[in-house]
Amino acid sequence: MDDAEFRSLHRQELVDDRINGASQLARRALDGLAEFSGSCSIEDPAELQEALLAFAEELQYARPNMAPIHNLVERWADRVAGLEPATTAELRHDGAAIAQELSDGSIHAVSRAACEAARLIGPGATIITHSLSSTVLEAFLTLAPAGVDAIITESRPGLEGRNQARHLDQAHIPVSFITDAQLGHFSRIADVALVGADTLLGDGALVNKAGSYLLALAARDCGIPFYVCCESFKQVPYGAASFELETLDPAELDAPRGRYITPCNVYFDITPARLIDAWIDETGARYAARADSDAT
Amino acid sequence: MDDAEFRSLHRQELVDDRINGASQLARRALDGLAEFSGSCSIEDPAELQEALLAFAEELQYARPNMAPIHNLVERWADRVAGLEPATTAELRHDGAAIAQELSDGSIHAVSRAACEAARLIGPGATIITHSLSSTVLEAFLTLAPAGVDAIITESRPGLEGRNQARHLDQAHIPVSFITDAQLGHFSRIADVALVGADTLLGDGALVNKAGSYLLALAARDCGIPFYVCCESFKQVPYGAASFELETLDPAELDAPRGRYITPCNVYFDITPARLIDAWIDETGARYAARADSDAT
Repeated sequence: MDDAEFRSLHRQELVDDRINGASQLARRALDGLAEFSGSCSIEDPAELQEALLAFAEELQYARPNMAPIHNLVERWADRVAGLEPATTAELRHDGAAIAQELSDGSIHAVSRAACEAARLIGPGATIITHSLSSTVLEAFLTLAPAGVDAIITESRPGLEGRNQARHLDQAHIPVSFITDAQLGHFSRIADVALVGADTLLGDGALVNKAGSYLLALAARDCGIPFYVCCESFKQVPYGAASFELETLDPAELDAPRGRYITPCNVYFDITPARLIDAWIDETGARYAARADSDAT
Repeated sequence: MDDAEFRSLHRQELVDDRINGASQLARRALDGLAEFSGSCSIEDPAELQEALLAFAEELQYARPNMAPIHNLVERWADRVAGLEPATTAELRHDGAAIAQELSDGSIHAVSRAACEAARLIGPGATIITHSLSSTVLEAFLTLAPAGVDAIITESRPGLEGRNQARHLDQAHIPVSFITDAQLGHFSRIADVALVGADTLLGDGALVNKAGSYLLALAARDCGIPFYVCCESFKQVPYGAASFELETLDPAELDAPRGRYITPCNVYFDITPARLIDAWIDETGARYAARADSDAT
């Protein structure tokens, strides 16, 4: 495989992936950068540095609604751009080492955020969630020994929820597996709604798999809290006004064909901050502003 | 086919049907009663009357969450029970005639309700709906010449929305076809949400395909009206407290298998009256109580 093939293949894998959440894909992107640092055929240090940064820029925008891909790859690119390597060997080593360091940091942050969520929720709860999130999965695993029940949506069209259900099953956690349309009915049974995030906007709004907004509405209507749990690398500074929701291949819907039928696959939706009761990251929980609270 | 086979087959067809809405299935039940009146092998008038009423009772509870099946079959049974036929020929004729009369009345009521909905909504609107409803379909067809756009969900697991989309496509009505999980995002684009009903409870709450409650929540949050449109035969006197939601075969979800995974297929959900802006039937529209209104 030549350099161009490697870059194109790795980027496409990120675009097509429906198995992994945003944090995992961000670490996949870092893995790709580490591997490319080692395998790229260029032998001049300055040219190699330029090729690495060009590849980073390609990966950064592979999944525009997944902030950690953008943020972690940008962090990597900033540090690699600041290197002044005398040899390609040195640059190859540093490129891989920085990727590893950022990846380890991400794993640690996810773990910490999951622990904070588990601490906030406590044992014996029935948690309803939507789609797939490695952070939410870790929160479930943390709570498993003390007892926890899960309500998991299938999450059409990518069916990421099937994966979430399999992981929980392996951990012996009882799972009620539902269609996305049953989110409302089952919110009446749950104690708490917990989701991960693809991106957290500057105004506290959540970008996550389409359907998360519906879960937040149902949770509010049923009087259960709606928590968002993710590493802080998922935050972006701008708000919903300057954010465009990613549309994926409409063929995923397997819609009936017709001249007047347009299948739509807006893969994410935006949950406004006013529907979120707490944001949980590796540093702890931040609660929504209430009459008796000073949080924002 | 003997009498028992006919009865069992017809009942099972009602149970398994995912193509037709509640009003259509109610008329199917009446068709079955008319056909059985003619074909049943019993030659004693009193025994025939008893067999017809027994069959009616079987059909009445074939789809417990679809009120018109119960209501129209009960109306038929009440009238057939009141007959005092001298001959089986007379009873056969009357049984079929009463079924036809009730069926015609249902078709007329659906049509009138659809016209009322079309009049209330007016031309040029983008209407978002969920699942399949013959009344909603007729409202779309009524609005088609003046212009109307549709947002249609696939409606997992039965995929009734695919049928709705095909019917609209045949009528040259532009359809945005979405997953159920996109109901929230697309409510922001729609002008009005319109659904049919499987049952209307005594307190004004709606029983309809699971996901209708989510659409009502999204419509309220997005500031668009949520209308329910159905013939008055869908009303029952009791409230949500004494209503049990129908659960269909969990295999329809095609869930991942696992010892700790329980697939759930609660096919309907309940939308409380407070989320409904107007109830439309063949007699017109009844609006939700507002500070400036005297409706209930």
